Amino acid sequence: MQHRSLVAITRRAASAALLLLALGASVPALAQGAAPGVDPLPSWNEGAAKQAILDFVKDTTDQSSPRFVPPAERIATFDQDGTLWVSHPIFSQVMYCLDRVPAVVENKPELKKVEPFKTVLSGNREAIAKLSMKDLEKILVATLTGMSVDDFTAEASAWITKAKHPKFDRLYTELVYQPMLEVLTYLRANGYKTYIVTGGGQDFVRVYSERVYGVPPEQVVGTAGATKFGYRPDGTPFLTKEPKLLLNDDKAGKPEGIHLMIGRRPNAAFGNSTGDREMLEYTMAGGGARLAMLVLHDDAQREFAYGPARGLPDTKVGTFPQTLDDEAKKAGWTVISMKNDWKRIFPFER
Amino acid sequence: MQHRSLVAITRRAASAALLLLALGASVPALAQGAAPGVDPLPSWNEGAAKQAILDFVKDTTDQSSPRFVPPAERIATFDQDGTLWVSHPIFSQVMYCLDRVPAVVENKPELKKVEPFKTVLSGNREAIAKLSMKDLEKILVATLTGMSVDDFTAEASAWITKAKHPKFDRLYTELVYQPMLEVLTYLRANGYKTYIVTGGGQDFVRVYSERVYGVPPEQVVGTAGATKFGYRPDGTPFLTKEPKLLLNDDKAGKPEGIHLMIGRRPNAAFGNSTGDREMLEYTMAGGGARLAMLVLHDDAQREFAYGPARGLPDTKVGTFPQTLDDEAKKAGWTVISMKNDWKRIFPFER
Repeated sequence: MQHRSLVAITRRAASAALLLLALGASVPALAQGAAPGVDPLPSWNEGAAKQAILDFVKDTTDQSSPRFVPPAERIATFDQDGTLWVSHPIFSQVMYCLDRVPAVVENKPELKKVEPFKTVLSGNREAIAKLSMKDLEKILVATLTGMSVDDFTAEASAWITKAKHPKFDRLYTELVYQPMLEVLTYLRANGYKTYIVTGGGQDFVRVYSERVYGVPPEQVVGTAGATKFGYRPDGTPFLTKEPKLLLNDDKAGKPEGIHLMIGRRPNAAFGNSTGDREMLEYTMAGGGARLAMLVLHDDAQREFAYGPARGLPDTKVGTFPQTLDDEAKKAGWTVISMKNDWKRIFPFER
Repeated sequence: MQHRSLVAITRRAASAALLLLALGASVPALAQGAAPGVDPLPSWNEGAAKQAILDFVKDTTDQSSPRFVPPAERIATFDQDGTLWVSHPIFSQVMYCLDRVPAVVENKPELKKVEPFKTVLSGNREAIAKLSMKDLEKILVATLTGMSVDDFTAEASAWITKAKHPKFDRLYTELVYQPMLEVLTYLRANGYKTYIVTGGGQDFVRVYSERVYGVPPEQVVGTAGATKFGYRPDGTPFLTKEPKLLLNDDKAGKPEGIHLMIGRRPNAAFGNSTGDREMLEYTMAGGGARLAMLVLHDDAQREFAYGPARGLPDTKVGTFPQTLDDEAKKAGWTVISMKNDWKRIFPFER
């Protein structure tokens, strides 16, 4: 059904294009992906952030501009957690792993009395919150590896359609930022290939990226483990997720992952934390027109306010320390204030 | 200049599309990427191989077909060496590495008297041909790692524009198979994303893939090493190629690489040797319409004839043993006979 409706949408878009042609609209207007006069970023307040995006697209798609980028080379990369959707107070993928522990223990009862599984099974939130990184790693390995790729996809797909954020009581997939969806659409309409470059699991994000962000699985770069090819007893080949890390797609791992998976330097990159610093630096180090943007979580009322740049205590996720703010100013990165730049945060707000 | 001409081509294509629309051509005809009655595979003789390709495309792109594949899911993967271009008697990338040895030794004179570098520098072809796999690995590490990604790209780009095949005295990039170029174009015109999935180096093939095959770097999956992010003395970030293997994209590594880099099972796969067996098996194990094809090198006059399936001695490259032929028959893979199925082998033949 999903595909049928996509086809229908594509057909409608084609009809609209033909209509515009019949009305004598110019081809450049089509290339911009919006009728003249229609705001491609309606959830953005007027200001430096919105203008930076509009200027970047104009500069790189206008053939008479010295900063024109040929369509085949247009690449934009987006961090996910805290940049495209809510990641506070805990990454949704960590919630997934914690939620999977009972099923893992059911298959391996010997883990029942072994830490950190014992603590997770206890349901004691305070104790769970105090688990060390090493404990968390054990949970990630136990819940994300050792099964076939198909089984993992089925489990993660089922979870993501019902798991809800504790504060908003909404599906995680509803807690995407409407202004960023508009940027994704706007860039794609202007010939950009949009990639997610996430510290989260590549296989996890691929489960919903197309439906939620319009980003197909092959355009998701994330933390990735090895898989192992093998055969089922009936001879059918399949892949098993192995506990061997190939790419830690965070910090310096982001440009390394971009090289591995894309092989081109992005023209534009969007992030929100120190995990995105190297990706933004790498993006800006190329020639021609470049755009680097950082989402600042400064909206305690509509989402969250965190990070020492706002005089708040540092947190484990989405840190935006003063040093990053300083680098942004020095390097010409644009900071997006959720509070001031975004008219609307979520698609469900009207 | 390359980009300007691409733009010009795109413009011409757009004008042609508008003209067709004005003439009342149907949108489905456009979607097929060729005017009705025009043979999309003119370098193929009529026969089972050509028909298998035409049937596959018809089946998967006709919305009334039960085997219709939505455009976003159309993926086709192609081995390179022996499938898209000549790889006999030696892979061009191995030639590149051997050719780079003098420059490497110039920077590290202590290697001059060390094997296997001493033998390579001697120029003694017989001795070079006898080097072991371990020796070859040392040469690959010395010539493909330890430099920046940008330096490697510059060196490989310069080499590929002048290195020639010993038998044909032609650039390697001229020795691509015209019938396979037509398949790539035909599949893309029908909404397929075409990927190269090669045992060769990912960074090496990316240097020329767009120009030679129309396959952009982000659609090249190959044997890949790690890179390391760092800063130059002036603060500019850059990536260094490390001697650490991330993906050995051959045999079982091909479906593993496809999962890592694409995250979808291909609908169609093309190969020529035992290195492609697992990719073809993995491709065919999916539901719906599938196409698996193997290029058989049986044309001693126009290219080469090798492989024991033709009663010839096995060789190191492009092996096509009887077992693979048996599996092809049993599994419904189509064998392409270069001798019988291809009217023309190379683009320069008229």
